[in-house]
Amino acid sequence: MTYEIIKELTTTKKDKTPDHQLGFGKRFTDHMFSMDYEEGKGWHNAKITEYKPIELSPAATVLHYGQAVFEGLKAYATEAGEILLFRPDQNFKRLNRSNERLCIPAIDEEFALYALKELLQIDRDWVPTSEGTSLYIRPFIIATEPYLGVSPAKNYKFMIIMSPVGSYYAEGINPIKILVEQHYVRAVAGGTGEAKAGGNYASSLKGSELANAQGYAQTLWLDGKEHQYVEEVGSMNIFFKIAGKVITPALNGSILAGITRDSMINVLKSKNIPVEERKIAFLEIVEAANNGTLEEVFGTGTAAVISPVGYLKWSDGAIDVNNGQIGEVTQMLYDTLTGIQYGKLEDTFGWTIKL
Amino acid sequence: MTYEIIKELTTTKKDKTPDHQLGFGKRFTDHMFSMDYEEGKGWHNAKITEYKPIELSPAATVLHYGQAVFEGLKAYATEAGEILLFRPDQNFKRLNRSNERLCIPAIDEEFALYALKELLQIDRDWVPTSEGTSLYIRPFIIATEPYLGVSPAKNYKFMIIMSPVGSYYAEGINPIKILVEQHYVRAVAGGTGEAKAGGNYASSLKGSELANAQGYAQTLWLDGKEHQYVEEVGSMNIFFKIAGKVITPALNGSILAGITRDSMINVLKSKNIPVEERKIAFLEIVEAANNGTLEEVFGTGTAAVISPVGYLKWSDGAIDVNNGQIGEVTQMLYDTLTGIQYGKLEDTFGWTIKL
Ligand SMILES: Cc1ncc(COP(=O)(O)O)c(C=O)c1O
Ligand SMILES: Cc1ncc(COP(=O)(O)O)c(C=O)c1O
Repeated sequence: MTYEIIKELTTTKKDKTPDHQLGFGKRFTDHMFSMDYEEGKGWHNAKITEYKPIELSPAATVLHYGQAVFEGLKAYATEAGEILLFRPDQNFKRLNRSNERLCIPAIDEEFALYALKELLQIDRDWVPTSEGTSLYIRPFIIATEPYLGVSPAKNYKFMIIMSPVGSYYAEGINPIKILVEQHYVRAVAGGTGEAKAGGNYASSLKGSELANAQGYAQTLWLDGKEHQYVEEVGSMNIFFKIAGKVITPALNGSILAGITRDSMINVLKSKNIPVEERKIAFLEIVEAANNGTLEEVFGTGTAAVISPVGYLKWSDGAIDVNNGQIGEVTQMLYDTLTGIQYGKLEDTFGWTIKL
Repeated sequence: MTYEIIKELTTTKKDKTPDHQLGFGKRFTDHMFSMDYEEGKGWHNAKITEYKPIELSPAATVLHYGQAVFEGLKAYATEAGEILLFRPDQNFKRLNRSNERLCIPAIDEEFALYALKELLQIDRDWVPTSEGTSLYIRPFIIATEPYLGVSPAKNYKFMIIMSPVGSYYAEGINPIKILVEQHYVRAVAGGTGEAKAGGNYASSLKGSELANAQGYAQTLWLDGKEHQYVEEVGSMNIFFKIAGKVITPALNGSILAGITRDSMINVLKSKNIPVEERKIAFLEIVEAANNGTLEEVFGTGTAAVISPVGYLKWSDGAIDVNNGQIGEVTQMLYDTLTGIQYGKLEDTFGWTIKL
């Protein structure tokens, strides 16, 4: 940690939105972190300043060739007034894996976490305290070189912005309806699916738009090669409980290695609930539904926490899961995860860090 | 055409780089075009202003989810001092097809062309005149809404910037060496390969970097499903001449529908040279090389014009094409295309428009 953070704090603080009016990702705290990269010079110019627009050349690589990566994590307020982060080291590790795939220079993971903590300390009063609310944290890196040739940029900007977010389940945990996408593809092996890179999300917009228009909350993506194997859902990994065993797609190179996914696998193991990571044909889920062994379906992700799935629709039919009710294991995972994140349960895994 | 263009021109003109020192995409003209989109209001605020940095919210969609599309075309100076555009209507058509895939609102193609001509008129003296030089034009659209939810943005910016570019073949047309990429994938059917969208290029950086490091100018991409069928090259479509017949991959949804590609197919047909668009297994090319019927290989694209390929390397071997010399048909296409673009040949196809 040889960087110094220049702090140019603002004295004009923004009004805060009441917790019950918080949505997702529309309001931002008073400050942001930024740091620049220049070929030959490396990462430098670490700063915490007022949250404000940035200036970019119209020829900046990120605007043309999508050379950009991001992360998403949350800070949680405990009843005791402490602030907890959930496995933030994993986010910066994954950011560097995304960097590697997108030819973006690695960041110093330890320094990034230090910078995040400094920023959080300054905007500490932005962490909402009502049940289920949190402060969403978005680290991201964009290529800023003003050059239209298609090649890795020589200049980058690493930023962290933060947004207070409402409870995903303000109206209770209601199982969602999902549409299985059989035409559009989010990512394919050899592509960037494993990275948290813009292109995957840009590619997913069309399918999501069609799903939303038909009343589905999310899209279930199938593999890009055969359109047969389950990949993941919008911004969640997916799990199925079949005949007492929990299964989830293996990390095959085209899905995101979710940190919630990894955590839930560990919780399941700690409770001696059988869990398997492997290739899963969508037809297998259909069969399990038909023979009555499909017990639960749920998604895992930082934004949506644990999200029960109550209905799956595909071209040839539909599946009702657990009569549209949240399942036992899903509920247990939700309680365990949020319990640890909000400091209500003992963190036996050592996942949280205190600010 | 119901829009009006506000013109805020600059009086401080930048120095121009001498033609022989022009590279690609690093210098920009004095002015740029921009126009905004807002949900409910549509496209508005069309402006030609000084070329200068833009302000973006750090939460702008384009920086996180890659919702952005672009185009590339050129203006050519004729010996008579006229300025020609090559099929610009096709670029704005394709921009709208890209928009459709990326959930970006359509632009008015006619107005876009009108705006481009106005901009060109203002920066007319930026079109370089030396042999092989041109003014590269980059229309692009970026999502600007400051919102971290993954959904199509409600605000966009459409811009046109222009960059004088040197001759791609200042040192003569030397056939390039290409590496066949067998691991990384640029795009897959159902993805965004057909659109000129950032994610495809971001995904391609890694393969290109590895190819460049081994001394290859470009990557030949294979299909994302079976890694067996020829797709395209970096920023060019690819053609093979085998036993007198020219073949090129069909527009299958994962490759870009190049405007040069389409034009060259038409030139070939007009000269009664057999040409076929179809699925092409890479092994077919290997076999043709082995039995001596592979006569020519070339790429087509706005930046590189017609680019002969002299050497193809893949995991199991390598192919020398036409002893590393430019082939007859390749040369004919190059002469015909540049002849039309620079106004030296009669434009029997009606492809060019005069400023
Ligand atoms: C595509 C995708 N899959 C899965 C996830 C879940 O990952 P995590 O649990 O780390 O939030 C996310 C969200 O981060 C995502 O964007
Ligand atoms: C991926 C890709 N393929 C092919 C091409 C060639 O297209 P065009 O001939 O329209 O320039 C380009 C460049 O525009 C491209 O980016």
